[in-house]
Amino acid sequence: MELIEALNWRYATKKMNGQAVPQEKVDLILEAARLAPTSSGLQPFKVIVVTNPELKQALLPHAFNQSQIVDSSHVLVFAAWDNYTHENIDEVFNRTNQERGVLAEATAEYVARLKGMLVDREAEINFQHAARQAYIGFGMAIAQAALLKVDATPMEGFDNAKVDELLGLSAKNLRSVSLLPLGYRDEAGDWLAGLKKVRQSLADFVIEFK
Amino acid sequence: MELIEALNWRYATKKMNGQAVPQEKVDLILEAARLAPTSSGLQPFKVIVVTNPELKQALLPHAFNQSQIVDSSHVLVFAAWDNYTHENIDEVFNRTNQERGVLAEATAEYVARLKGMLVDREAEINFQHAARQAYIGFGMAIAQAALLKVDATPMEGFDNAKVDELLGLSAKNLRSVSLLPLGYRDEAGDWLAGLKKVRQSLADFVIEFK
Repeated sequence: MELIEALNWRYATKKMNGQAVPQEKVDLILEAARLAPTSSGLQPFKVIVVTNPELKQALLPHAFNQSQIVDSSHVLVFAAWDNYTHENIDEVFNRTNQERGVLAEATAEYVARLKGMLVDREAEINFQHAARQAYIGFGMAIAQAALLKVDATPMEGFDNAKVDELLGLSAKNLRSVSLLPLGYRDEAGDWLAGLKKVRQSLADFVIEFK
Repeated sequence: MELIEALNWRYATKKMNGQAVPQEKVDLILEAARLAPTSSGLQPFKVIVVTNPELKQALLPHAFNQSQIVDSSHVLVFAAWDNYTHENIDEVFNRTNQERGVLAEATAEYVARLKGMLVDREAEINFQHAARQAYIGFGMAIAQAALLKVDATPMEGFDNAKVDELLGLSAKNLRSVSLLPLGYRDEAGDWLAGLKKVRQSLADFVIEFK
């Protein structure tokens, strides 16, 4: 299926039917998020995959009781780094240099400049920057799900602090930014299923300088 | 081409060859961004398409002289709303209700609650939220470009204020958040073209709660 067709097919499913998404499709969705480009290749986010029924039940009230949390088979939680540090930046470049078979000297100047920009900046500004990177991956996951005809509901309406606490994210220096339950639409039970997808017209959305 | 294959094919092209991307491919890339899901369907961003040679030349110094600005055929500028207001929220729901053939009363309560959350919030917080939505569209555009074998370089390294000024974005209540030059790789001239793509392993990237 082409991407445009897939994006027209998808919608923010409000009611899922409980059917489980096969693991191989979940793996492709995670892989798309993992391959997403990020600023300086830092990949400052992780994806938490919740399939445990008790934990999903515990998440439910912190996501305003949106039923997709329990009627999906997998809840993906996108969580961004809470800050940039010497350690997490070094980890990225050590790995990259090792896998590319180049010496640390090859990137030393670049890394020093990057740290000079990021490490002393306010943590909240760094988190906001990391969150944007997570949203590129979030977009890739949404695209891949739609291409696989898996329903996915992008969600920001949840209590981030409570979700962080429940999943122990602070100890991992992560903060949740968005949720993506994966499952299948229950068309008969979903008020949004039959409604037209509405977007700005292309003429409104695009400004051209020719 | 499958999305995973496309994401493995793409890379942050550092040197482009000047060949123009056909308009029908650019249109598909813009359409993918336009179809991206956003919080409450607000679509709080636009894409500015710069093909004018003088304007690209003028952008160049504000993007740290990265040559893709002039060696690409189209520079996409993603720009987010600088705030949420009664007016821009009303515009979205008026259009949506009209296209769906429902009365304003149908969404009045939802819109009132949404305005209650957003309109009195600090402009900077609202802009950060809008910027995240723009990044979902940014991800969709990157995915679509790769699927079409069009090279695209996601860029944050530019002087946002200068770009806003050059494009007159403040008057449109927009702030630039990212650039995406579209073109074709000059493999012989690109130091990054031959290097291995490195990412966190899936085991590091994903945290499972089974």
